[in-house]
Amino acid sequence: MEKKEFTVTPWEVKGEVDYDKLVEQFGVQKIDNLILNRIQKHTKELHFMLRRKIFFAHRDINWLLDEYEKGNKFYIYTGRAPSGPVHLGHLMIWVFTKWLQDKFKTELLFQFPDEEKFLFKENLSLEKSEEYLHENMLDVIALGFDPKKTKFLIDTKNADLMYKEACKVAKKITFSTVKAAFGLNEQSNIGAIFYTSMQAVPAFLPSVLKNKKIPCLILHAIDQDVHFRITRDILPKLGYYKPASIQGIFLPPLTGPLGKMSASEESSAIYTTDSSKESENKIKKYAFSGGQATIEEHRKKGGNPDIDVSYQWLRMFFEPDDKKLMKIHDDYKSGRLLTGELKEILIEKVIKFLKEHQKKREQAKKQINKFLIK
Amino acid sequence: MEKKEFTVTPWEVKGEVDYDKLVEQFGVQKIDNLILNRIQKHTKELHFMLRRKIFFAHRDINWLLDEYEKGNKFYIYTGRAPSGPVHLGHLMIWVFTKWLQDKFKTELLFQFPDEEKFLFKENLSLEKSEEYLHENMLDVIALGFDPKKTKFLIDTKNADLMYKEACKVAKKITFSTVKAAFGLNEQSNIGAIFYTSMQAVPAFLPSVLKNKKIPCLILHAIDQDVHFRITRDILPKLGYYKPASIQGIFLPPLTGPLGKMSASEESSAIYTTDSSKESENKIKKYAFSGGQATIEEHRKKGGNPDIDVSYQWLRMFFEPDDKKLMKIHDDYKSGRLLTGELKEILIEKVIKFLKEHQKKREQAKKQINKFLIK
Repeated sequence: MEKKEFTVTPWEVKGEVDYDKLVEQFGVQKIDNLILNRIQKHTKELHFMLRRKIFFAHRDINWLLDEYEKGNKFYIYTGRAPSGPVHLGHLMIWVFTKWLQDKFKTELLFQFPDEEKFLFKENLSLEKSEEYLHENMLDVIALGFDPKKTKFLIDTKNADLMYKEACKVAKKITFSTVKAAFGLNEQSNIGAIFYTSMQAVPAFLPSVLKNKKIPCLILHAIDQDVHFRITRDILPKLGYYKPASIQGIFLPPLTGPLGKMSASEESSAIYTTDSSKESENKIKKYAFSGGQATIEEHRKKGGNPDIDVSYQWLRMFFEPDDKKLMKIHDDYKSGRLLTGELKEILIEKVIKFLKEHQKKREQAKKQINKFLIK
Repeated sequence: MEKKEFTVTPWEVKGEVDYDKLVEQFGVQKIDNLILNRIQKHTKELHFMLRRKIFFAHRDINWLLDEYEKGNKFYIYTGRAPSGPVHLGHLMIWVFTKWLQDKFKTELLFQFPDEEKFLFKENLSLEKSEEYLHENMLDVIALGFDPKKTKFLIDTKNADLMYKEACKVAKKITFSTVKAAFGLNEQSNIGAIFYTSMQAVPAFLPSVLKNKKIPCLILHAIDQDVHFRITRDILPKLGYYKPASIQGIFLPPLTGPLGKMSASEESSAIYTTDSSKESENKIKKYAFSGGQATIEEHRKKGGNPDIDVSYQWLRMFFEPDDKKLMKIHDDYKSGRLLTGELKEILIEKVIKFLKEHQKKREQAKKQINKFLIK
């Protein structure tokens, strides 16, 4: 098979991502059936995103479960850098986060590094970032996280808790390291250079605050891995555990299997605030099809679900039922199901999901304070 | 005259400092009589540290006074990076700060960058830095600052106010700039690289909090100038005034006219917590003398007050009365006053000052909270 070029960094994902190659490059482990069995021992059922390897890789999950089984409970750390509206690609990982939190009854520290994108994007103001912060918090709350077990850690607002800890991390990281890890250079600004220290903090802050070592599980899309490789290097030097992690693949953009969904490309993403009509139109207009050029040809040759975005969205997010999904897969592959019909299945599910989400998003406006640390 | 080598950076002061050369190198202005007259118009009297050019250089004082005369009142910003006990060299600048604050009835923002020395010194822990912070605050309070008009800004504790603003500064500063300005390199840690952004914040934070441009006067020893040259470059780009500043020379170390007093060299400094006996012994044992080798020779040739540390301490800190100082000067120069006698004059004044300071320092323990921002 031809080798394709692709890029996966915290700032850019492009090309057709070869996840096997990433596993090797980043030095993560694939989540195999032994691990799934261990998880299932505690969760009883397995989330379809685990069964289907949407969350496909990890570091130190066996250690984390060893600790858990000894009674040394972990907490979950995930996050969102507010730089635009939330789309379905963002929600996917948080839906899984909530499931994992519920099943293991853990605390969740949700970081909003509201300075990150400001520091890395020439044209994003902090004011704009604060607007997105507010909007993005609503989306997280709308997913139903329990405010008693979930706290939002906002870099600029909670810097009185974070900056000191970030300095401890920063003292152990040279410019040379961030240059190599993130491709920074002499023209990079000194805030961007410092930033990874802040992203490390939620991986040990609860241990600081409670003055005991608490295991941490980071849930993140694989593009953030480089931050946490550095974090894992440093934390033991500060007397804390290396965080364990679970990495997810990207929900593909509407426009096709390359890259990841981007909040700044309207045609690639469905936002949580899109109306039913907008969602429907976007899917009809942009959703990349694995079908054939004509109905006749499609009936004869069948479609390719592996590259069909509507099918992939059903597989990764909207159709939890394996049997139903298998039928859709087989029908599409055999040509019984047309692209238009497949899109209709997705549209109905997306609209239903968004209607519910938007209702809860409205209710979330009164709940923000419950999630803030102060 | 032979040219001497000397170094003045925020981390190192060594050699015989040529202040005229620094004025040129750093691009500051000397404080001339026109400026002294303008200041005196408002203060009625002139502090001896101004008359004697202990505070000898400035930036934009004319602009600052223009604004003041238009009713646009400035505030003062000074600070102390807690990395050891406070000595008399530190106090000198704060004594002057208090006078200026009282005369112009201004607010004072006193920064304690408690992460700075941690980031720049291999062996200083943050815990140790916090101890010094507490001790150092007592020394500042003991000088009698009015808690209604004086606030302590502690980098790690007030980072919720500062970090966001520091990020705005940081976005405008490249690694290349701090490399050139501070001599940092690829092996420097990313906290040290970021740090100057935090030191810039007190120069505009009140403008942020009150949402209007407020002139700022920074009082500092000349070794901190490089931070504020960068600050002055950046602030107009963020919509704030360039801070004005007044720079002071260093109280010479007991051991001689080279370098500056160092908290880490016992023999060079008198600490605010030294007992009367310790102060007396240090001055007797270490204070560099401008006198001759024998009494006979001294009576004949006279001493050199310009290099005599006891005389310089009287001139710079402990003898505000110009006439008395002149008499000491002339007596020493003519040989009438012996080094031992000169030291006795200083010892008496230092002991008296420290006794009073230590009493107020005890009382200060109950007052810290009044100076904290939260």
